[in-house]
Amino acid sequence: MARTLTLAAIQFSPSDDVQDNITRVAGFIREAAAKGADVILPPELFCGHYFCKTQEEEHFARAMEWQDHPAVRQYSELAAELGVVIPVSIYEKDGPLYFNSIVIIDADGALLGVYRKSHIPDGPGYQEKFYFRPGDTGFRTWSTLKGRIGVGICWDQWFPEAARAMALMGADALLYPTAIGAEPQDAGLDTAARWRRAMQGHAVSNVIPVVAANRVGDEGGQVFYGTSFITDETGEIVGDLGRQEEGVLVASFDLDKIDQARAAWGFFRDRRTDLYEILI
Amino acid sequence: MARTLTLAAIQFSPSDDVQDNITRVAGFIREAAAKGADVILPPELFCGHYFCKTQEEEHFARAMEWQDHPAVRQYSELAAELGVVIPVSIYEKDGPLYFNSIVIIDADGALLGVYRKSHIPDGPGYQEKFYFRPGDTGFRTWSTLKGRIGVGICWDQWFPEAARAMALMGADALLYPTAIGAEPQDAGLDTAARWRRAMQGHAVSNVIPVVAANRVGDEGGQVFYGTSFITDETGEIVGDLGRQEEGVLVASFDLDKIDQARAAWGFFRDRRTDLYEILI
Repeated sequence: MARTLTLAAIQFSPSDDVQDNITRVAGFIREAAAKGADVILPPELFCGHYFCKTQEEEHFARAMEWQDHPAVRQYSELAAELGVVIPVSIYEKDGPLYFNSIVIIDADGALLGVYRKSHIPDGPGYQEKFYFRPGDTGFRTWSTLKGRIGVGICWDQWFPEAARAMALMGADALLYPTAIGAEPQDAGLDTAARWRRAMQGHAVSNVIPVVAANRVGDEGGQVFYGTSFITDETGEIVGDLGRQEEGVLVASFDLDKIDQARAAWGFFRDRRTDLYEILI
Repeated sequence: MARTLTLAAIQFSPSDDVQDNITRVAGFIREAAAKGADVILPPELFCGHYFCKTQEEEHFARAMEWQDHPAVRQYSELAAELGVVIPVSIYEKDGPLYFNSIVIIDADGALLGVYRKSHIPDGPGYQEKFYFRPGDTGFRTWSTLKGRIGVGICWDQWFPEAARAMALMGADALLYPTAIGAEPQDAGLDTAARWRRAMQGHAVSNVIPVVAANRVGDEGGQVFYGTSFITDETGEIVGDLGRQEEGVLVASFDLDKIDQARAAWGFFRDRRTDLYEILI
């Protein structure tokens, strides 16, 4: 029997009300499941506005322990009901430590664990180093009931090292929840095209499908550009969304066919690990 | 004074006559120099037909010591005359060792040294593991009179590790001489789009211009697809050539502006070398 994996991205415009967001994203999860999705990815930190625009002490109160987060608890039940895998992006508190994290919920509702964003950006409009300790979990892949997935978080998506690491760990697909849009220091700077190119490159170099789920909407002057997409294992975009619409993207992949193509391409056969010391 | 670097790619259909190829490529080098190019890149192994289509003992006789190669000797004089940098792709013999190598000729004609292709492909139509020992030089960058360049060779171009290594070593631009085209095992397989995407990804992730110079033409049934290109530091293609034409591509870059953009993007600031052990 062919191993098929159906991936979905949710593009979403959050309010700043946690339960409202959880409820509305649940609607999109149901829509994606109805379209046959096995793994359904909401955007980064979808439970509220993107608070990292400025440095405000009060925003630390948004963080919670990952097992207790209402999105995790509610989506655990939803995942079991629908039989789908849901990577849930949250602001995580672990004692005095704060992380930008993803909790992986398996298709039976089991909580498989947490990955903490490894690469933390910092720039005008994206003050993440104030809020998040660089992740201490290392890159992870998750053997779900539907397939083995690797999930990076936003800034991770620009780093070929993260994609390669997850591919080396056996990922069948790479997923990136995201919050990206306008650059306040330069109104003319639109990074959408290069954002796609970076991840299309990961798809090619690792012969692996890639999913990117971004937010949309204007959050107090900061506009997020959507353009969520799914690529196949050649980096070709097989589905995408616009810059303003909310919605769901779904695409199916034959994992056995991709495994065979990955082997025949020989990238993993021919890597020169003896020459890569400079990378670390 | 702004540091400007003007890069050129030559797209070329070789005969199987060494001197004929050297002479014709010299014409393209003069054309590129007349258009202001500082660094001029001919395709991979341009001195003859792509002999790796099959495994034939006689082809080992094509290899020479790099200092003695007629292309190196003649282009050393040409580089000095025109004041241009020329990376020269050759089949290199070093005692009992055979490499797929590039010799870097500086703009005063000096021979800066040799890089030996690190990643060696092997597949129908591209039997390179029969002919070439995997390179033992490691990745290198070259501080030329015109700027610091990194040069990978063909299959290297698919590996984000090689691009990252050269960027970490201070390259201002990445150049890839290439010989790629039809896949004899699958007449319907056209890899041109993903070939571009892989290198566009390197440009984005390293905030660096990328040049790819491919051959064209039908060599006994093996057709090379050209589509040579130059990207800017966002991965956008700023110039390209078709699938059959010979010719020259030229594009200029403001290295100071790119350095500043590379710093502001923060990719090199935020790399997590403590998490990259799996890559080696």
